Amino acid sequence: MKTYNLALIGFGGVNRALAQLIADDPSRFAALGFELRVVAITDLAFGSLVQGGGINLADVLSMPRGSSFEGLAGGSSDPRNEQVIKDSPADIIVEATFTSPVDGEPAVSHVRWALGTGKHVVTTNKGPVALFGRELTDLARRNGVTFEYEGAVMSGTPVIRLAKKLLGGLELSAVQGILNGTSNYVLGRMENGLTLDKAIAEAQALGYAEADPTADLGGSDVRLKVAILANELLGANLQPTEVETTGIQGISSDDVADALAHGKHWKLIGEARRDSDGRVAASVRPVALTADHPLAGITGATNAVSFSTDLLGAYTVSGPGAGRVETAYALISDIIAVDQFEKVANRV
Amino acid sequence: MKTYNLALIGFGGVNRALAQLIADDPSRFAALGFELRVVAITDLAFGSLVQGGGINLADVLSMPRGSSFEGLAGGSSDPRNEQVIKDSPADIIVEATFTSPVDGEPAVSHVRWALGTGKHVVTTNKGPVALFGRELTDLARRNGVTFEYEGAVMSGTPVIRLAKKLLGGLELSAVQGILNGTSNYVLGRMENGLTLDKAIAEAQALGYAEADPTADLGGSDVRLKVAILANELLGANLQPTEVETTGIQGISSDDVADALAHGKHWKLIGEARRDSDGRVAASVRPVALTADHPLAGITGATNAVSFSTDLLGAYTVSGPGAGRVETAYALISDIIAVDQFEKVANRV
Repeated sequence: MKTYNLALIGFGGVNRALAQLIADDPSRFAALGFELRVVAITDLAFGSLVQGGGINLADVLSMPRGSSFEGLAGGSSDPRNEQVIKDSPADIIVEATFTSPVDGEPAVSHVRWALGTGKHVVTTNKGPVALFGRELTDLARRNGVTFEYEGAVMSGTPVIRLAKKLLGGLELSAVQGILNGTSNYVLGRMENGLTLDKAIAEAQALGYAEADPTADLGGSDVRLKVAILANELLGANLQPTEVETTGIQGISSDDVADALAHGKHWKLIGEARRDSDGRVAASVRPVALTADHPLAGITGATNAVSFSTDLLGAYTVSGPGAGRVETAYALISDIIAVDQFEKVANRV
Repeated sequence: MKTYNLALIGFGGVNRALAQLIADDPSRFAALGFELRVVAITDLAFGSLVQGGGINLADVLSMPRGSSFEGLAGGSSDPRNEQVIKDSPADIIVEATFTSPVDGEPAVSHVRWALGTGKHVVTTNKGPVALFGRELTDLARRNGVTFEYEGAVMSGTPVIRLAKKLLGGLELSAVQGILNGTSNYVLGRMENGLTLDKAIAEAQALGYAEADPTADLGGSDVRLKVAILANELLGANLQPTEVETTGIQGISSDDVADALAHGKHWKLIGEARRDSDGRVAASVRPVALTADHPLAGITGATNAVSFSTDLLGAYTVSGPGAGRVETAYALISDIIAVDQFEKVANRV
């Protein structure tokens, strides 16, 4: 059975969840026709660890926060990301660090180093795809590898690959989505009578919202995702800054109650739409949807995307938009895509 | 470019819509990397027409109801289904006749004749898949062809292929669906205050419900679809008669109003679920769903399926469950699958 060697870049929630899944249940992958072996891990806190024969994942998962890989065979207290990505014996670089919405760093450098040295990249980071999607896809092609990023839009909920693999023969004219669970949760709680501030405080207490919820409520998180959907699914070449963005901070309890009285639901909608002249326009803004809109019934922290198609009308998918294990599944689905790429290239 | 020769078995709404799509916009298929040529059509009313060089679709689409293929080159007033399916120069048999829920005829014979003579089959008929899915899939395998039936569950809305192609690495424990648009429309209108009878009459006036709406409201339509989902996606081997079935005829206006007052929505739910002992149980019954259930917000005649998975929780897809063009798209998606089968077999 084919074995893929992985380097985990970043050892926070998502990559730890992936490591746990590999350690707990290798048969999940055997059923897919391959084995996964982690040969390198880098992390700002732990440093780096390279073991070509395979790292014992149970051991590293049990290391307490604040400890370091230094002292282990192949270990160092220094993350050494560039060196590990370029020189490690990994076939696939699993990028799950963090990303600046302005320049995509440090994730985008990690992706460039990996693709540039002929390694596949799977990532859950929005930044590299939203800001440099075309460049990185070209770089992958030139180096005979693939760049996969299903988790960048709705964590593990298939949406990009779904549109590319299953909607062949349809013409897509628009994509609309509820792409931020925090703001959808907050708007839903406002329908239950909470004020915006109370609903935010509750979302924070439940772990849905960050201490600073600006990126969630103000739409800048969704803006990156809309740019990805516009570029990937409608063939646009938009930068996130070109996506007109309005958050939900201006929505009052009265607005929510008024809408509800008319059978409408406020939602933060990210949208990319092709005009009749072929131009793709994209926006993020709160919209009061009538109950028959395919996104009106999406409740709680659930995310959803609705595709407007010529032959089917609206086709809608919904599922989790966050979560460690859910996002780790996005990486698994990306690794399956790498395996299919290798099969088509007749390397397996 | 590869050309696939099609035989259209049945020339009613769905196959006419497919013929119209092929005639109107061949570039839709060229973009997919193949051309489609219809070389045979059979129909109870029109008879049969076989023209190996390709039938002029605009001509036959303009023939009035009540006319016959007799007198055209290769034409006959007799459908001659068996002869055409077995002997025509078609690569793909497009089966869109009708099907008895008891024995699957005549569709199941059409499928057997086609697969048995080494022709691919694409079909929108529930009967052959629900009653003889394993036998027909085996027959296809033994004859080196493929049997595709995406449209049997939700017309053009991808669901079977989605689960098989995109949910790799996930364990599915259950599938729940709203699989009959008529009953969902009726229940929705009852929420607006109509009685069951008034809502049915309205659905009939709009063309959603048949003159005899028993199969829709009584659950026997959904029963076939649940058997397909249980067998295809949960590995069961159920006959439709093993699916415990209750329709919505017993749901009163009071039931609907009571549920609504508690934030709940009555839906006709088809479900297949794997027990802890591995056995798959399936049912069709009305359920009052709480608003946070992924199927609670599915309104109008829309259909939906929600997959219960180990890593993602609920993943839900919704879209049209009927319609001529929508169902013709299911056939297109099946033909794309045939093309991929041919590519893997290195025949293209």
